[in-house]
Amino acid sequence: MHDPLLLPLDQAELSAELGGGTIRRTVHPSGLRILTERMPGSRSASIGFWVGVGSRDEQAERGDAPGSLGSTHFLEHLLFKGTPSRDAYEIATSFDRIGAESNALTAKEFTCYYAKVRDADVEHSVQVLADMVTNSTLDASEFDLERGVILEELAMAADDLADVANERFFEVVMGDHPLGRPIGGNPGTIREARRDDVDRHYRDRYDPTTLVVTAAGAVDHDRLVELVLAALNASPEERWHTERSGAPVRRAQVVREDQDPAAAGSEPEFDAVSRPSEQINIMIGTRGFAATDPRRFAYGIMNSVLGGGMSSRLFQEIREKRGLAYTAYSFGASYSDAGLFAMYAGTATEKAEEVVELSRLELQKIADSGITEEEHADALGQIAGSTALALEDTETRMGRLARAELGSGELYGLDASLARFNAVTAGEIQAVAAHLSASPLSVVAVGDVARSGLGKAG
Amino acid sequence: MHDPLLLPLDQAELSAELGGGTIRRTVHPSGLRILTERMPGSRSASIGFWVGVGSRDEQAERGDAPGSLGSTHFLEHLLFKGTPSRDAYEIATSFDRIGAESNALTAKEFTCYYAKVRDADVEHSVQVLADMVTNSTLDASEFDLERGVILEELAMAADDLADVANERFFEVVMGDHPLGRPIGGNPGTIREARRDDVDRHYRDRYDPTTLVVTAAGAVDHDRLVELVLAALNASPEERWHTERSGAPVRRAQVVREDQDPAAAGSEPEFDAVSRPSEQINIMIGTRGFAATDPRRFAYGIMNSVLGGGMSSRLFQEIREKRGLAYTAYSFGASYSDAGLFAMYAGTATEKAEEVVELSRLELQKIADSGITEEEHADALGQIAGSTALALEDTETRMGRLARAELGSGELYGLDASLARFNAVTAGEIQAVAAHLSASPLSVVAVGDVARSGLGKAG
Repeated sequence: MHDPLLLPLDQAELSAELGGGTIRRTVHPSGLRILTERMPGSRSASIGFWVGVGSRDEQAERGDAPGSLGSTHFLEHLLFKGTPSRDAYEIATSFDRIGAESNALTAKEFTCYYAKVRDADVEHSVQVLADMVTNSTLDASEFDLERGVILEELAMAADDLADVANERFFEVVMGDHPLGRPIGGNPGTIREARRDDVDRHYRDRYDPTTLVVTAAGAVDHDRLVELVLAALNASPEERWHTERSGAPVRRAQVVREDQDPAAAGSEPEFDAVSRPSEQINIMIGTRGFAATDPRRFAYGIMNSVLGGGMSSRLFQEIREKRGLAYTAYSFGASYSDAGLFAMYAGTATEKAEEVVELSRLELQKIADSGITEEEHADALGQIAGSTALALEDTETRMGRLARAELGSGELYGLDASLARFNAVTAGEIQAVAAHLSASPLSVVAVGDVARSGLGKAG
Repeated sequence: MHDPLLLPLDQAELSAELGGGTIRRTVHPSGLRILTERMPGSRSASIGFWVGVGSRDEQAERGDAPGSLGSTHFLEHLLFKGTPSRDAYEIATSFDRIGAESNALTAKEFTCYYAKVRDADVEHSVQVLADMVTNSTLDASEFDLERGVILEELAMAADDLADVANERFFEVVMGDHPLGRPIGGNPGTIREARRDDVDRHYRDRYDPTTLVVTAAGAVDHDRLVELVLAALNASPEERWHTERSGAPVRRAQVVREDQDPAAAGSEPEFDAVSRPSEQINIMIGTRGFAATDPRRFAYGIMNSVLGGGMSSRLFQEIREKRGLAYTAYSFGASYSDAGLFAMYAGTATEKAEEVVELSRLELQKIADSGITEEEHADALGQIAGSTALALEDTETRMGRLARAELGSGELYGLDASLARFNAVTAGEIQAVAAHLSASPLSVVAVGDVARSGLGKAG
């Protein structure tokens, strides 16, 4: 068994054999971090350019100063729109003509631009991604066109009731905290977004200190480092130049010291969004565990038993024994200093109250009585099997490197990770459920709520 | 380069090296077909039990005789509900406790039960899948519970406007043909479904002649054949016994001779489903190409250029140049004797007419002027790259074996497949677009249609 790899910033080079692959990490004096995992026999690679800035780092409106809500996601779109050496069509064809799976993703604590490609296409793809991320033109006419695209993206999400429930749930549970805001902003902030604000966001936040490049599969670490450094130093934008004399490492990642998650959202709430619908989309939950919380392993087992599969308690009680829903599960979301825990079901309007009560009760039962030994063993088996299957994919490994670097600061091999799960005691699992059950449980319902009877008591 | 593997029924054993894996096929005298692809270095496997029966094989209501619409999908659900030796909970834990990715899928021409598991779990998973498929109890009380689950599944789909557009599009383009029906039936047929009908469907249609077992990854062909035959012969149901003396091979797959796709749906239609919404979901299209149509390679290239990625014409004209939609693409669906072609976009209500016209126009342009040499080359690159990436996955390969066996009857290695695409001429690509463009193009719109202005002229 291997120990977890800690990722201390003061260690410039690190190399380890971990779970079949060879992991290497380079921290350049400029702050740029590059992590790779070479997987023997792989004929493809996934490459990600991660920037440690997400929607929580945006400024809300303050008095006269306009806010920048949605600017992180707006910027993500604009990075596909062209650089001095590649226009938008060339960027699109660069990936399409090699059959790459490429896309980008804005989250609450990071933004990611990635591609999965055949081994022969790795170098070319790194060059295109590096150009996109470092040299975006943020052309003004493209800005206005993209505003329309983003408004359509928000409209699409607004028509998806499970999506609406999820966003509202974050708002309810996190209160005024920036983690509670929708990632993409809202139609109002997007209609009012100004190119200069997004441009400032880009220039202030995207630089070698926030950039993490990760790759897994058929990759050569030294060659990747060389390519990325060359691209950064060729940028017309001086802030990318890693060879500037005396360039200080400003920070490892965005610091969010003024955002105390404990400050907001401690009351249980009931929140309804009325929409004509066949089903009610219900989310029930509360604050959960941060990415570094030592209870996260106990939580993983508890969640597997409560709502992690067809044999889980929620699925059995809500779907299998009563036929009340097609889907019923629980999940957690983890951030650097906070987390959320939720139970979800989509159910017939007239059954919504029953489903809410059943969900609360199942959590309460684990809080009161724990889980059985058989459930405990099965959950460990589920975690071991599903993790092993997931790690066959270069994309999973590429993402794992970045999440460790930007999040927990620890990287486990499969064996070390499972050892942490295996060490969890029954009492710790019960304690996690008791903690969640004793927390203020909020309920969000989206759909034909008036007909559901929900919220009458709340 | 390898030639395509034809899959003639009279050849009992076949073995070939194809694209890195070793493919073997056994046709048992009972009609049972087993295909495997061993992938060197793989530590997991995907296993599928495919039954060559889908929603198109159901009986619609005729006079006094009740129909069975939705019974194929209903049966798919019930197969998870227990056998004489495993109850529903045991089936669920069998997969969950090993972290398997398992599920089932009902389509118009087949039904599939599958699992992706680690190599050590292959045998156990084959046994569970075989038990589920051959020995389902179809318990009456489970039947009524599952009715509720399926009604919730239909309600969930009814709340998804893109789903609604897709189902309606099939109805419009296929007219009265069984391929036009929704796969899951409708709330009316599910409320009225009777256990005896589903049971009859099971007994009439599930037997060794309709069963195809495929597996890819870390699998041993001989051992898989042995396991499946042992499971079938251990069944309490005599129809599964492959050792019955004189058991005839009744048919290779369900014969659909009385279903002539040419007979229905030849007029262009406009069909609107009014729903309160932010976006209009639009599908524009017509009959396409069957799974064995020789034009399918030309169509693949045409579709890649028209609507196959970020650089495609639809994406560029609708999203990149005008900002009218977040998503715009085209796709085809192929069946044994028919196909569909569709262009899709989700757009602002007031832009719906413009998007419909742009889509028609882009198809027309290829019909009139073909594609450029650069587009042609890029499309071939896209097909080569994306196919190579997809074939890294055991699930893709497992599915490919079954689709070849149940569909086209041909199985290509990557090189042979690409050779077919490379042989396509510019004239053939243009001819495919001309054929589609000259066909009756129907339009389906789902959302706030009244406000869109759509359909005023149609």
